[in-house]
Amino acid sequence: MKRIICLTTVLAVSFAASAQQFVIGGTKDDRTQAMQPGMTEYYYPKVPVVTPGDIKTNSAPSDAIVLFDGKDLSAWTGENGNEAKWKVNGDGTMTVNKESGGITTKESFGDCQLHLEWCVPVGIHGSGQAKGNSGIFIQGRYEVQVLDSYNNETYSNGQAASIYKQSAPLANPTRPEGEWNVYDIIYKAPTFKEDGTYRTKPQITVLFNGVLVQDNTIIVGTTEYVGLPQVAPHGDAPISLQSHGDPSEPISFRNIWIRKL
Amino acid sequence: MKRIICLTTVLAVSFAASAQQFVIGGTKDDRTQAMQPGMTEYYYPKVPVVTPGDIKTNSAPSDAIVLFDGKDLSAWTGENGNEAKWKVNGDGTMTVNKESGGITTKESFGDCQLHLEWCVPVGIHGSGQAKGNSGIFIQGRYEVQVLDSYNNETYSNGQAASIYKQSAPLANPTRPEGEWNVYDIIYKAPTFKEDGTYRTKPQITVLFNGVLVQDNTIIVGTTEYVGLPQVAPHGDAPISLQSHGDPSEPISFRNIWIRKL
Amino acid sequence: MKRIICLTTVLAVSFAASAQQFVIGGTKDDRTQAMQPGMTEYYYPKVPVVTPGDIKTNSAPSDAIVLFDGKDLSAWTGENGNEAKWKVNGDGTMTVNKESGGITTKESFGDCQLHLEWCVPVGIHGSGQAKGNSGIFIQGRYEVQVLDSYNNETYSNGQAASIYKQSAPLANPTRPEGEWNVYDIIYKAPTFKEDGTYRTKPQITVLFNGVLVQDNTIIVGTTEYVGLPQVAPHGDAPISLQSHGDPSEPISFRNIWIRKL
Amino acid sequence: MKRIICLTTVLAVSFAASAQQFVIGGTKDDRTQAMQPGMTEYYYPKVPVVTPGDIKTNSAPSDAIVLFDGKDLSAWTGENGNEAKWKVNGDGTMTVNKESGGITTKESFGDCQLHLEWCVPVGIHGSGQAKGNSGIFIQGRYEVQVLDSYNNETYSNGQAASIYKQSAPLANPTRPEGEWNVYDIIYKAPTFKEDGTYRTKPQITVLFNGVLVQDNTIIVGTTEYVGLPQVAPHGDAPISLQSHGDPSEPISFRNIWIRKL
Repeated sequence: MKRIICLTTVLAVSFAASAQQFVIGGTKDDRTQAMQPGMTEYYYPKVPVVTPGDIKTNSAPSDAIVLFDGKDLSAWTGENGNEAKWKVNGDGTMTVNKESGGITTKESFGDCQLHLEWCVPVGIHGSGQAKGNSGIFIQGRYEVQVLDSYNNETYSNGQAASIYKQSAPLANPTRPEGEWNVYDIIYKAPTFKEDGTYRTKPQITVLFNGVLVQDNTIIVGTTEYVGLPQVAPHGDAPISLQSHGDPSEPISFRNIWIRKL
Repeated sequence: MKRIICLTTVLAVSFAASAQQFVIGGTKDDRTQAMQPGMTEYYYPKVPVVTPGDIKTNSAPSDAIVLFDGKDLSAWTGENGNEAKWKVNGDGTMTVNKESGGITTKESFGDCQLHLEWCVPVGIHGSGQAKGNSGIFIQGRYEVQVLDSYNNETYSNGQAASIYKQSAPLANPTRPEGEWNVYDIIYKAPTFKEDGTYRTKPQITVLFNGVLVQDNTIIVGTTEYVGLPQVAPHGDAPISLQSHGDPSEPISFRNIWIRKL
Repeated sequence: MKRIICLTTVLAVSFAASAQQFVIGGTKDDRTQAMQPGMTEYYYPKVPVVTPGDIKTNSAPSDAIVLFDGKDLSAWTGENGNEAKWKVNGDGTMTVNKESGGITTKESFGDCQLHLEWCVPVGIHGSGQAKGNSGIFIQGRYEVQVLDSYNNETYSNGQAASIYKQSAPLANPTRPEGEWNVYDIIYKAPTFKEDGTYRTKPQITVLFNGVLVQDNTIIVGTTEYVGLPQVAPHGDAPISLQSHGDPSEPISFRNIWIRKL
Repeated sequence: MKRIICLTTVLAVSFAASAQQFVIGGTKDDRTQAMQPGMTEYYYPKVPVVTPGDIKTNSAPSDAIVLFDGKDLSAWTGENGNEAKWKVNGDGTMTVNKESGGITTKESFGDCQLHLEWCVPVGIHGSGQAKGNSGIFIQGRYEVQVLDSYNNETYSNGQAASIYKQSAPLANPTRPEGEWNVYDIIYKAPTFKEDGTYRTKPQITVLFNGVLVQDNTIIVGTTEYVGLPQVAPHGDAPISLQSHGDPSEPISFRNIWIRKL
């Protein structure tokens, strides 16, 4: 969770330069020059807006591990191994607690199919990255961006369903505040060589409200706010949901389940 | 459509040997020995049965080409370029006409996301491949199997959502007769070399009732009833729905839309 | 080694039908119909003949494991774990001993770069598959064919540098009898899922006398003489050189080294 | 050729910041912050040094297009479409002319196998990127680095056989000054979508003195000296050899041939 705190902190201190620099397919080294956040933000090609169809789900397949069915956070821990303190609302949903930090699954995962729904509150304030920002950190380090991208401009590779600062989504089918957005994610975990670099890179497909937005995208390393993707070996790892440091009203989640592949 | 007629004919004459033989990654040649249908049917690994969640859709994304919205068959032609004669039921669905043969889109497609729903009639008779058999022929030649696979044993690589006789589905989430099944297909078209072999092979991902059943599967050639996959160059091509020669009651389709990728 | 004996026996009894049948991406099952050898042999597209350049090597890179440098067979075992009994000629080469069966490395390998040279004796008799036939079994089960394919017709997917009965070479740069042929092979080992099927398939690139003949070819299973490729889980495994049962004069090898990747 | 001039100019003015910034998988945009050259240079993992074997070639396969056989530069043009003015030495080799800029093939290429040899002069001066620097620009925009990397430290992703500033080589088998180095390159050209982004990315395999150094590496965009890879659509394109602006003595080339795949 430390990393997530770090990210929000960096954001809070208005885009201060990080001491960490990472490069394409590499790992950090003191000789590599420091970067600024804006160096990995691009605005073109523009992501086409699509009005999604009315895809709806309420229940999980029988072989899925249900991570959140509306009742409790028993599948999750909070920061530093403490109890997860997001708010369970009693109507099948839960809401981010911006004071308590992110939450992380107790179980670790490799190849998987992940279903998750999220909703931005009616009347949310803010703009750009500071409006309904959250994220799903697959294996704790590859972020599928969550953001209110309905009529909200930001860099292409930072909007909802981007692989954060790596791969812009193919379309923007975000629903307006108060409506539920659906992510269906197919993820293939990386394998590593002895020197710590990828033997096979992670790959991800994302359907967003039923619209294909990541098409077997190859992930080239961690999804960094400042600097380039970093590569370091890891095995199966938990999934984290981000409590982002922006001042906008907290978003909610529901219907989270995962199938091991 | 000729090929589809041929397939059903072959089946009708009780698995007679075809004069055509195709081999792995190849094209037909007189010197290659003829095969029997049963040579490309395998039963192991067994496909695990999964009860799907309650995924539901009624409408298409705004950038989709609607191929069937319940009103008419204007996007389709029948056999030999004639009018499509499947039955439009007036309730948003259409039903296979086993007398008139398959139907084919007027438009051609390459890379695409295809959504389609199908339903086997209550009280359907038959078993194995002779129960609710149909198929979706992507680019007219790569079949995603449609079959009543609810409590109905057949070879693994021939059940619902198989890439017919090539790739068994990862799971069997077929819903029982009278309930609607949903296919969400992501397809990458092949490219060809000058000698007519694949430069890049076709690839396909299928979600079946929201469950991943084909995971970026590499298609190695046409999906033949008798013999091995065949490779021959083609460009964008229409999608066909099969009118299968088995004697079981005809199945129905609804909500068919496609997005060009 | 048992499998290799079996292959040569089957060939010796003039292409008798095997009781084993394997299917595309599958594993054997009694219900699948038996095949004949000629069903997986194809002749089209014809492989273009190329006269290679004069690529020559005598020594290995410093980080290679030398499997044969002309001096002895200490890196190899023979059939059934016995001593390797192929003939070391004293001039840097060794010759197949058709009485004693194949030889197998003592060490196991996964991802690797393999260099190997082979030569058909001057005055060799025979034709088709019965002329200078041998093979390199990567991980003991994926055969890169060795055959005198200089002015010697056979099925495309069975000539020199084919992935036997799966993938024909892109070109035929075989040198005539008495001259040394060079294979440079880049191999990526498969990974497996819990159900025993491939998670990632094996892939192979082959340069044959400096000419690209397999271009990151995806291997779909074992390279069977009779029937379709079979899939069964395995880890790192030795490399075998085949002693083939055809009556032609035995071929020779030299300069065999491998780099773990 | 304009781009190559630009690169050398930028280098000559001591690493001045470029006005162009590109991002991962993107195309340039004014809102993205400018980068410095050192931001895309990484030093870890360190590339292991390997002493290569004695691989040697003098002639091309019969189906190759010979781009340079020692006689003349008839297959090449110089800057701005002028005559290629590198020095043909009469001993089968040619030498870079640092005054006249790079040279470019008259013919365009897509998928190909490229063979090329290069040699740094005995007594060459300089260090790091300023010692024997040149480059092979596949399709005019994806650079396979040429550099005297024998006992010469530089960033990992900038040494000989790197995909410049993208992918470090797997090994460093560079031969010392006065000896010939051999590159065997297998290249798969990209395909593009309508929006100008990659449909399939370029891929490259490089054998360097017979040692695998790029293993089907996915290229993510152009190989920029300053900033991140850029993506813009292109078809078949010529190959360029770089005349680099560093003050070290010019290097030589020989035996350049290419096979269309």
